[in-house]
Amino acid sequence: MVKLRRHFHENPELSFEEVETPKTIAAYLRELGIEAETDFGGRGVIGRIYGGQPGKTVALRADFDALPIQDEKTVPYRSKIDGKMHACGHDGHTATLLAVAKVLQKNREHLKGNVVLIHQFAEEFAPGGAKPMIEAGCLDGVDAVFGTHLWSMLPHGQIGWASGPAMAAPDRFEVKINGRGGHGASPHETIDSLYLGTQVVSQFQSIVSRRLDPLQPAVVTVATFNSGTAFNVIPDSAVIGGTVRTFGEAVQTQIIFEMERIVKGVCEGSGATYEFNYFKGYPALINPDPEIQLVASSARKAIGAENVVEMPPIMGGEDFSYYLFERPGAFFFTGAGNPEIDAIYPHHHPKFDFDERAMVQAAKVLIQVTLDYLEAD
Amino acid sequence: MVKLRRHFHENPELSFEEVETPKTIAAYLRELGIEAETDFGGRGVIGRIYGGQPGKTVALRADFDALPIQDEKTVPYRSKIDGKMHACGHDGHTATLLAVAKVLQKNREHLKGNVVLIHQFAEEFAPGGAKPMIEAGCLDGVDAVFGTHLWSMLPHGQIGWASGPAMAAPDRFEVKINGRGGHGASPHETIDSLYLGTQVVSQFQSIVSRRLDPLQPAVVTVATFNSGTAFNVIPDSAVIGGTVRTFGEAVQTQIIFEMERIVKGVCEGSGATYEFNYFKGYPALINPDPEIQLVASSARKAIGAENVVEMPPIMGGEDFSYYLFERPGAFFFTGAGNPEIDAIYPHHHPKFDFDERAMVQAAKVLIQVTLDYLEAD
Amino acid sequence: MVKLRRHFHENPELSFEEVETPKTIAAYLRELGIEAETDFGGRGVIGRIYGGQPGKTVALRADFDALPIQDEKTVPYRSKIDGKMHACGHDGHTATLLAVAKVLQKNREHLKGNVVLIHQFAEEFAPGGAKPMIEAGCLDGVDAVFGTHLWSMLPHGQIGWASGPAMAAPDRFEVKINGRGGHGASPHETIDSLYLGTQVVSQFQSIVSRRLDPLQPAVVTVATFNSGTAFNVIPDSAVIGGTVRTFGEAVQTQIIFEMERIVKGVCEGSGATYEFNYFKGYPALINPDPEIQLVASSARKAIGAENVVEMPPIMGGEDFSYYLFERPGAFFFTGAGNPEIDAIYPHHHPKFDFDERAMVQAAKVLIQVTLDYLEAD
Amino acid sequence: MVKLRRHFHENPELSFEEVETPKTIAAYLRELGIEAETDFGGRGVIGRIYGGQPGKTVALRADFDALPIQDEKTVPYRSKIDGKMHACGHDGHTATLLAVAKVLQKNREHLKGNVVLIHQFAEEFAPGGAKPMIEAGCLDGVDAVFGTHLWSMLPHGQIGWASGPAMAAPDRFEVKINGRGGHGASPHETIDSLYLGTQVVSQFQSIVSRRLDPLQPAVVTVATFNSGTAFNVIPDSAVIGGTVRTFGEAVQTQIIFEMERIVKGVCEGSGATYEFNYFKGYPALINPDPEIQLVASSARKAIGAENVVEMPPIMGGEDFSYYLFERPGAFFFTGAGNPEIDAIYPHHHPKFDFDERAMVQAAKVLIQVTLDYLEAD
Repeated sequence: MVKLRRHFHENPELSFEEVETPKTIAAYLRELGIEAETDFGGRGVIGRIYGGQPGKTVALRADFDALPIQDEKTVPYRSKIDGKMHACGHDGHTATLLAVAKVLQKNREHLKGNVVLIHQFAEEFAPGGAKPMIEAGCLDGVDAVFGTHLWSMLPHGQIGWASGPAMAAPDRFEVKINGRGGHGASPHETIDSLYLGTQVVSQFQSIVSRRLDPLQPAVVTVATFNSGTAFNVIPDSAVIGGTVRTFGEAVQTQIIFEMERIVKGVCEGSGATYEFNYFKGYPALINPDPEIQLVASSARKAIGAENVVEMPPIMGGEDFSYYLFERPGAFFFTGAGNPEIDAIYPHHHPKFDFDERAMVQAAKVLIQVTLDYLEAD
Repeated sequence: MVKLRRHFHENPELSFEEVETPKTIAAYLRELGIEAETDFGGRGVIGRIYGGQPGKTVALRADFDALPIQDEKTVPYRSKIDGKMHACGHDGHTATLLAVAKVLQKNREHLKGNVVLIHQFAEEFAPGGAKPMIEAGCLDGVDAVFGTHLWSMLPHGQIGWASGPAMAAPDRFEVKINGRGGHGASPHETIDSLYLGTQVVSQFQSIVSRRLDPLQPAVVTVATFNSGTAFNVIPDSAVIGGTVRTFGEAVQTQIIFEMERIVKGVCEGSGATYEFNYFKGYPALINPDPEIQLVASSARKAIGAENVVEMPPIMGGEDFSYYLFERPGAFFFTGAGNPEIDAIYPHHHPKFDFDERAMVQAAKVLIQVTLDYLEAD
Repeated sequence: MVKLRRHFHENPELSFEEVETPKTIAAYLRELGIEAETDFGGRGVIGRIYGGQPGKTVALRADFDALPIQDEKTVPYRSKIDGKMHACGHDGHTATLLAVAKVLQKNREHLKGNVVLIHQFAEEFAPGGAKPMIEAGCLDGVDAVFGTHLWSMLPHGQIGWASGPAMAAPDRFEVKINGRGGHGASPHETIDSLYLGTQVVSQFQSIVSRRLDPLQPAVVTVATFNSGTAFNVIPDSAVIGGTVRTFGEAVQTQIIFEMERIVKGVCEGSGATYEFNYFKGYPALINPDPEIQLVASSARKAIGAENVVEMPPIMGGEDFSYYLFERPGAFFFTGAGNPEIDAIYPHHHPKFDFDERAMVQAAKVLIQVTLDYLEAD
Repeated sequence: MVKLRRHFHENPELSFEEVETPKTIAAYLRELGIEAETDFGGRGVIGRIYGGQPGKTVALRADFDALPIQDEKTVPYRSKIDGKMHACGHDGHTATLLAVAKVLQKNREHLKGNVVLIHQFAEEFAPGGAKPMIEAGCLDGVDAVFGTHLWSMLPHGQIGWASGPAMAAPDRFEVKINGRGGHGASPHETIDSLYLGTQVVSQFQSIVSRRLDPLQPAVVTVATFNSGTAFNVIPDSAVIGGTVRTFGEAVQTQIIFEMERIVKGVCEGSGATYEFNYFKGYPALINPDPEIQLVASSARKAIGAENVVEMPPIMGGEDFSYYLFERPGAFFFTGAGNPEIDAIYPHHHPKFDFDERAMVQAAKVLIQVTLDYLEAD
């Protein structure tokens, strides 16, 4: 598992550019005697394990793409490719799922049902690989789908789960306010887009504070405000951008609506015009009961109840949500942080790393979940 | 003059309710042998002095209405009527003009032209008495019109003048924002008019700071904000009111336009509706050259150049502006403040009073202006 | 049960003014042969039922105070007292607990342990009756405490429960900004408290939107803004008030801190001073596991699993939270709404009423909870 | 005059880098027989004309520096130097003053007094050349100082004058708000400097709208707002910059005070820190009476009363103000715009040009002012 992971770690491939990684995966599966389809929905790989007894079909998913970040670690297995690295743990996900495949395939006689291995490309950038793989049929005949994320913010040894909202829909927006520039000493001859931008940011605060249900968590962050270059020249326009995080389509839809009408109101109050662009990321990941309860229970069996913790939702996004639109299932977090080996950096950090023993934990839980699900009535 | 003034002071009559005051004025004029018309344009009195020699006609104007304010002075001549008082000096204006009339009438043989005495009712409340008196013909045959205001903020002994903008247009506005009330714990089920009101007030600041020519003085003041009565009930509506002061119709028109579109923009940005009401007071009083220069020069002759000062405009309003729309002329200020006799309160204050010797100064200048104007080519 | 409830309904007594209600309760208990203490912690009544077998002790709590609201219903049992009514269902709580007492007392031989009946006064107004009753010892010897609220927003027939945060801490605040008033035309001679108030309200939005964990529900509502009375007079001060709702002391403490420093910052930025007053209501009610799970499970037994629903927290407050600071326990909601009998109004509404059959449901669940708790190891 | 002007136009030299221009000026003056001092106060040139009769001494000032702007005109005399041009008319000022020198020197026998020619370097960039030239003694023995600016916004043929405030103090400011950055999904772990910046800009509006005398013109413009680069990363800091324009030191001082306390208040309200930098440009240029009246009257004589217009103040700055701190005098505007020859661009525009006949007008008025001043008692 470690050898596989490090191989992937040294040879990262970006979303939608994966070539060698899926080849390696397919070769490994075939070597195990597992039927493998490549170029699935694009660059995905599907493996199929047929159990010795009839039963349901469980899908397990792992993603395998890397990020355009320069690896700043000094470990021997650091990225060999400039400007690219596995800074989110997808290398570990892939190695884990391959190890799980090995175990299940070896014991397939005792399996009451089948297992589909979904090796997904392109999770890092929307529109992502989950959607085309689903459209290509990766969930055909599947009864439930499970997955995990190695998580450096959770200590190695623990498994974390969240019922209901588990990961947010992470969207992006950009607003351009077009006023009319002019001399700094003659504001009355201009339409001051910079000032209007400040009013937009001010009123955006009221979306979360006044317009959304306080029990529905949501974030509207303006993270960029750029307007003007010369101290005595009122600029033509102001550009503000940021991110929105939500856990449900109704809230997301309402936020988009509120944002645009605030921008419109502020601009029309001053004769300015605007461009409003909103880019939806992945939908929120909502873990349904009883599947997430099954995960929690299986995890308690696999690694001990004292190591299984309920977590608050995470504000980042995951396209695993698309699988849960189609099938029952659940997504959980495998603790992978360890200060002793400097696995303390957040995901997407140039020094990101994880405790490789976490892969064992993840594999144990995935196998237990698979068995428990297949053996339940 | 003092006796007359104190008589009026003890017997104040409110705007549009003047009965005894015009009677007293007309009787006094007739006693002097001056032709007097009453009920002029409503409750006004017009006197006419015919000079011994042919020439131009000058009008002099004094207003005679009082205010609904309780007199808090302790002087013997304090108001005899509860809740009403001459808190602006119109009693002095009237006494002054009657004294001027006496002098001019006595010397009418030497006058090169005629004098019209305009005793105006209802200056304190818009729409005021100037307009109906003009419509009734008080300026017919008049070449120029002059007037003065006793001014407690200027020390007794001085005459003040301002070329161009002299007194502002004092307007009133009221904005009602109709949201939708609800429980304080559930803002998302409401449209929070109170919050929207705060954004309107915030953006109103940008009218003066960003949208008007910085060389055009103007004030937009929100002086009332009333919304909500219970700490845990979001109110249905917010009502804000205030005043606008300008010195020109273009600026006034622009302010009204900007105010309404700001309110509209804020409300539309949140699904609220609004009622916008703007009540124009008197127009700005703009003293034209060369008439105001004539006043300055006559005043220097009459009371000494060292006592004649140029003043910045005053932000209060006067319906004398209507006369200046129709004829050349000018309006000046007669210093009437005197700390030694406690004449230190601003106009409309319950303890307002003025140094009565100021009436002599005012009369001297009005007579000099009349003579200088009539004798000029 | 109905008879009792209607008796209380017709004879409402306000918080801290209860005289006849506790007398009626004590008399009823004694008639059942139940030991009753009155004037407990003030005006409370404690009943004690001793089971036939040794075991744990469960406390059940019901509140009995009414509200200063005029009853606008037309039913025969409407309030007989002008300006007072049971508009929150406490009459029903009391009748329910008395019925529960009757059943338990009758079957006390089979009870494995004891039951304490807490009839609490003064729930409606902080500081409330729970605190003094606890201080007087109502929880002495008690192992767990349970209670319910009839809830008109939940349909009759259902029982609702929430694990963890169940009812908010409902606080009140008032901020007075002391500026310096003056004439509306001369803002520069004033410190404009009204304007500063609008900036405070604006920045208060950022508490929820920027400064609190988005996963921690909270509300900061400004519900009153009062400043100024005359359109042309800038007022001396602005007073804003409102409510804060939170589910944890850390969030509550942070909000108070943020509010005050925003007010301070805005005032110091303009030379104004302020008075900041924050009045804490009851603490948030947090239902611990496993007690709330016990309630859910007992309720499923008592009224059928299909009638037991998990609910989001409620933003209103309850001083039941004080009992849960001292002992394990749980608080749940008994559906009592029914459009067919016009039981559709929110609590504290002048037309509030509830389906009286809900009392039976509440009684069933309370009895089941009591038995299940006492019989568990 | 045209030849001289075009020579300077083709060979622009930037402020504090002037070498050839002062040489050319000094050579020209000496050729006329005028005593000339170079390197005066740095790079200035002083010429002295001694009249045939005893009397007062008048100084006339012209500046000679160019700007770092690329000349985009296509005329034959366009700038020969890349990135530098006379885009403000100082070439014309210099040629005009040399022509004036020629006329006065020729007629010096009839002069009742003396004339000092101040050819000033470095007007375009603060701290400017006026101050060091004054410190070096250019006003020693001088009774009054006059100057003019060719003005493309005023039509050729006209002379413009303003009594009192004539040109603004043009200052610059920069505010850096230091918050604490973080992930866009976790605003509560940050101090959001961008948001705070918007509140600063909002409240800056209240300086002009609420805190300054409405009769004192002033501008506070925020022209740059830069914060953040990534849509999902809350930035560490926000930087806002802009300009302030005032006509008096009291107003300027108050604005600086108000700006800083607003910034401080907003930052302290959120735990942020700040850096506030304010850079004063030249002081406002205030034309005193009676000297500016003398200019108006001399101009009427020189070019006809119908061509002499009173102007509102100009919001740009001039270091001529330093001379007026030391001596009586006045500064006026010489109309130089002419659409027929495309002289329609504002000063500092890459296509700026002026009607060269304006230099004749300027020279006529300067000579007349000189004679009138020297001949007055």
